[in-house]
Amino acid sequence: MILFQCDYNEGCHPSIIEKLSETNMEQTVGYGMDDYCKQAADMICQKCENNALDVHFLVGGTQTNATVIDAALRSYQGVISAVSGHINVHETGAVEAMGHKVLALPSDDGKIRAEQIKQLYELHQGDSDKEHTVQPKMVYISNPTELGTIYYKEELEELAKVCHTYGLYLFMDGARLGYGLTAEGNDLTMADIARCCDVFYIGGTKVGALFGEAVVIRNKDLQKDFRYFIKQKGGMLAKGRLLGIQFSTLFENDLYFTIAQHANKLADEIRAALNRKGYSYLVENTTNQIFPIMPDEHLKILSDKYGYCYQAKIDDTHSAVRFCTSWATTEENVKRLVEDIDGLK
Amino acid sequence: MILFQCDYNEGCHPSIIEKLSETNMEQTVGYGMDDYCKQAADMICQKCENNALDVHFLVGGTQTNATVIDAALRSYQGVISAVSGHINVHETGAVEAMGHKVLALPSDDGKIRAEQIKQLYELHQGDSDKEHTVQPKMVYISNPTELGTIYYKEELEELAKVCHTYGLYLFMDGARLGYGLTAEGNDLTMADIARCCDVFYIGGTKVGALFGEAVVIRNKDLQKDFRYFIKQKGGMLAKGRLLGIQFSTLFENDLYFTIAQHANKLADEIRAALNRKGYSYLVENTTNQIFPIMPDEHLKILSDKYGYCYQAKIDDTHSAVRFCTSWATTEENVKRLVEDIDGLK
Amino acid sequence: MILFQCDYNEGCHPSIIEKLSETNMEQTVGYGMDDYCKQAADMICQKCENNALDVHFLVGGTQTNATVIDAALRSYQGVISAVSGHINVHETGAVEAMGHKVLALPSDDGKIRAEQIKQLYELHQGDSDKEHTVQPKMVYISNPTELGTIYYKEELEELAKVCHTYGLYLFMDGARLGYGLTAEGNDLTMADIARCCDVFYIGGTKVGALFGEAVVIRNKDLQKDFRYFIKQKGGMLAKGRLLGIQFSTLFENDLYFTIAQHANKLADEIRAALNRKGYSYLVENTTNQIFPIMPDEHLKILSDKYGYCYQAKIDDTHSAVRFCTSWATTEENVKRLVEDIDGLK
Amino acid sequence: MILFQCDYNEGCHPSIIEKLSETNMEQTVGYGMDDYCKQAADMICQKCENNALDVHFLVGGTQTNATVIDAALRSYQGVISAVSGHINVHETGAVEAMGHKVLALPSDDGKIRAEQIKQLYELHQGDSDKEHTVQPKMVYISNPTELGTIYYKEELEELAKVCHTYGLYLFMDGARLGYGLTAEGNDLTMADIARCCDVFYIGGTKVGALFGEAVVIRNKDLQKDFRYFIKQKGGMLAKGRLLGIQFSTLFENDLYFTIAQHANKLADEIRAALNRKGYSYLVENTTNQIFPIMPDEHLKILSDKYGYCYQAKIDDTHSAVRFCTSWATTEENVKRLVEDIDGLK
Repeated sequence: MILFQCDYNEGCHPSIIEKLSETNMEQTVGYGMDDYCKQAADMICQKCENNALDVHFLVGGTQTNATVIDAALRSYQGVISAVSGHINVHETGAVEAMGHKVLALPSDDGKIRAEQIKQLYELHQGDSDKEHTVQPKMVYISNPTELGTIYYKEELEELAKVCHTYGLYLFMDGARLGYGLTAEGNDLTMADIARCCDVFYIGGTKVGALFGEAVVIRNKDLQKDFRYFIKQKGGMLAKGRLLGIQFSTLFENDLYFTIAQHANKLADEIRAALNRKGYSYLVENTTNQIFPIMPDEHLKILSDKYGYCYQAKIDDTHSAVRFCTSWATTEENVKRLVEDIDGLK
Repeated sequence: MILFQCDYNEGCHPSIIEKLSETNMEQTVGYGMDDYCKQAADMICQKCENNALDVHFLVGGTQTNATVIDAALRSYQGVISAVSGHINVHETGAVEAMGHKVLALPSDDGKIRAEQIKQLYELHQGDSDKEHTVQPKMVYISNPTELGTIYYKEELEELAKVCHTYGLYLFMDGARLGYGLTAEGNDLTMADIARCCDVFYIGGTKVGALFGEAVVIRNKDLQKDFRYFIKQKGGMLAKGRLLGIQFSTLFENDLYFTIAQHANKLADEIRAALNRKGYSYLVENTTNQIFPIMPDEHLKILSDKYGYCYQAKIDDTHSAVRFCTSWATTEENVKRLVEDIDGLK
Repeated sequence: MILFQCDYNEGCHPSIIEKLSETNMEQTVGYGMDDYCKQAADMICQKCENNALDVHFLVGGTQTNATVIDAALRSYQGVISAVSGHINVHETGAVEAMGHKVLALPSDDGKIRAEQIKQLYELHQGDSDKEHTVQPKMVYISNPTELGTIYYKEELEELAKVCHTYGLYLFMDGARLGYGLTAEGNDLTMADIARCCDVFYIGGTKVGALFGEAVVIRNKDLQKDFRYFIKQKGGMLAKGRLLGIQFSTLFENDLYFTIAQHANKLADEIRAALNRKGYSYLVENTTNQIFPIMPDEHLKILSDKYGYCYQAKIDDTHSAVRFCTSWATTEENVKRLVEDIDGLK
Repeated sequence: MILFQCDYNEGCHPSIIEKLSETNMEQTVGYGMDDYCKQAADMICQKCENNALDVHFLVGGTQTNATVIDAALRSYQGVISAVSGHINVHETGAVEAMGHKVLALPSDDGKIRAEQIKQLYELHQGDSDKEHTVQPKMVYISNPTELGTIYYKEELEELAKVCHTYGLYLFMDGARLGYGLTAEGNDLTMADIARCCDVFYIGGTKVGALFGEAVVIRNKDLQKDFRYFIKQKGGMLAKGRLLGIQFSTLFENDLYFTIAQHANKLADEIRAALNRKGYSYLVENTTNQIFPIMPDEHLKILSDKYGYCYQAKIDDTHSAVRFCTSWATTEENVKRLVEDIDGLK
């Protein structure tokens, strides 16, 4: 069985596990105050071209989203998200468990637009009983989105502008950031993101690390006492150096981007095969997640050898599914899948 | 200025303020353990034809919704509501502040259907990663809804059935219950509601009381330690007798229903005038809230003499507004409004 | 049975119920935006000699404490309180339910001292892992305390000074404030309190109102969006005018203080009788709560005719209890109690 | 600089990093549903002699404590802990952030006694207004405690008995469990713990793993939907196999216990040196944490070469500090420290 169902089926990039082995018996102080964390933070700051105030390392995505959002909001304030946003769908209500409403906006492609933010904000402000409704205070976007689409520079700048105008924080969930920044058509750099967002994070779990997400804070309102939030929400790893070692390895010689590009390239090979069969897509994109709509009988045939994710029923004989590549996907496995797709009748 | 903007512009029914005056210097124990509360609870239980286990008195609606929902749900469970539901829109995220997600369902008329519940529940159950999404556990409906519509017996029974099948609690917000149960076309009794719902509340604030909501618990899972929840959420009135006195007055000789019917009858007179002008409605209904769509210039004329609520912009020259009658509305004021509507050109 | 067990056994001062009756059918806007609330707020501001920024009216004490504390603190910050503080003991964890730790300090008489605050704060600051412990951010005191003692001007000023030095908010729970400010030995005025505290509240429930607490905000950090907090926590009364009417009546001609003094005077008569019997006290004080230590057999005799509160077992034959007077206590009832105490053998 | 300040200064036991390297490129499903987690859970169940229902793997201690406690308690219920308990002091109010009060009991040695539980529970039950106070529902103990002391079998059985009688859950935080179970004087086995506790966890972070805590659930009331809690609180590691691999390695051939015993033995060597100098201890114990009271000038000398933790000021010239050994401490480093202690004058 070859798994294409997600981008966290393997461990980590070999150079990370080597570095972890090498440094294993060194003594360091705990909780992210060690030199490896400092070094990794410096490397990330440099990549952001000095648009970052602080970098913190947390363990996983749900934890990171909930921590950042709780740090940004008072209890009567909410976070705007696409209805398909990870925080609105796949985190078991972690944001609500910390007391905040997710204000969901409709979206077909996983993205939200500046105009939608404007309308929602003005509706709230214009309400004579505005203290009876949740006050919008943060905008959450994911890049790439849960549907594999990416934000273009112009879109991000417009979002940043409307957020700035209304005093909203702009937060980008970059769980798959590497795959976005190396995708065909992408025109964003990490420095652009650091300039536009008040806070964002660089996903390690899905892009080569064993685990770990690097939160980059740009707005000083979010900087104060952030470590208290990390500790309280359970995200402060005792052996914090594990995160520092992983991220410094990923940002050495742009490994993070090289391995993400590898995944995108292999995804393109699968896409080409799917295109040859004439399948359409739930949403078209250029990153490592592919959402073809396929005949159920074709899916059944592939399921003997390949793992993929069921996404949605389209009609009585067709379903949308997800195939994922990752930094760890091999040319060989993709070749097999492509051959088997080509062979479907 | 005559106010038609809501149903809580006046104090309380005269017989309530009289009774409060009469009993003012009596000594009673606090926190709802007095004889007036016992008496009121008994009267309500009788009205429910022995389908109630417990009756508790709280002060206001937001507090009551949040208390009941928090008592019913564990932190990973959510409450299903129409997107227009009061808890989803007008309570400043009180439910989320207690850690629970509101799972909003689309609705044009403020009501939700059994079929929608079924779909949402089955979608959750069918998810292979179901612990990554909020578990639906309660269904919140309001009757009348925020748009003045009412549930029919068959609809309520279907909701109860689907809730029972899936182990979901059914909770009815009856902030305006009196207006619903005396509306033209209503075929529900309070006993029906007590039979169908696991918990519901009878609104006092909007139907003749100074304040107060009576929570009726039917499901024994919700009965245990409910007073701890009331106290913690700030809903336990020190002089609890004030609630007992008000509700026992309202349920003596069905005063609650008599005064609600009065409001509906006056609403019908306003509706007749609006119909004569040929206005359409945002939603049609038979209770004390009326949602006409009117030319903005007509609204401007009326606004000199009458208070009403702005609801939504329909087009460049029309808006939907809300006129409310209540137990306190006078024939005389309605007559004036009707004449002025008739006189619009 | 004559009840001395608490100060909320009766309704409200007759002039309040009269005013509520008189204004009952007036139409006003809701949620505390009416003229009665404005008038009451102005009267209170005047009493504070312009040391107040805003006055808000809430329904009950637990709700008020939780709302003020949640408005002041971020999730990793805690509120310092005497171990006997109402928020630490008698509010079913309402503060914790909103996510904040109560940092309890030892206290024999219900009061906390500036020196204790200093020590606790410095211990936190000196901790190299300080983000692993809750950050102290607010000091909660009650005046009178739960044990009937009062703060003297010098003590309050010292607390204010240490709070100011360390950036802590000082919050006074004045559920029984009237009884404190009219007690023998008191040297504080409401203006002193408004000068020293960042926020405090004036209790209505226990001092002549049917219900209601008036929150006075002095620090502008606590002012912003406070109405959102009130609404979310369920403390925004739909018919807010009920609170405005009650507080404007209480602050007309200093009624609030006159009726509180009445209670203290009657408490002194009971104290004199207890002194004649030679009883000692759990804590000595000069307000309307009295905590004598009495032989259990004497208590048994009194319990046939009088309600009092059990406080603590002292030894095998003695207990501490609480007798309360209030604005509503009659000379006649006190005379009876005094005679019966005098007659104990 | 040789660090003795905590037991998480190094990475992990060499056999773990080897196993992680070996399995690195295997494909497994995520979120703890892989075979390595199943295998590790089975090994732990076996060690518990079939007294466990479920084993779950989380990442860190604060997260684990908060998740278990939130899963056990409703919002009005509290957890009893020694005042020195980790949840009460060093987790930034994580338990309160989830809405629950920690009910702290005095303790000199970090342990709490059955009699204290009994008194606190009965005080609550005897309160006529018991719904005004937090309901005790869980007892939290740590073994070894934060002061390095251990529970004896008889003590644990008495705690279990009183908890059982009153319907309280007994929860043991075993962050350092290995050091406790291999300490001189210990008479508990893991099976005893599984028999006595409703839930407990086996600490990996401090006993040889890179990170990870294994929660063992014995009471079926705590079993239902536990994975929802893990996910919501951010404790569900995407690459869950990392935890399975670590714990299966630790429980193969009792490695967990062997390496813990190593630490205790080295701690004894340091203790012997401290005893030779005649120092007393803050608390005496037999595990890997040592709390000597030493002259400040001696501490200053040692601080040039050794890291230790400052614990408390004892008097003007003495302080209590903490020295920790761990699975990773070397004989050589201990030998140096011992020589330097012996050389102090």
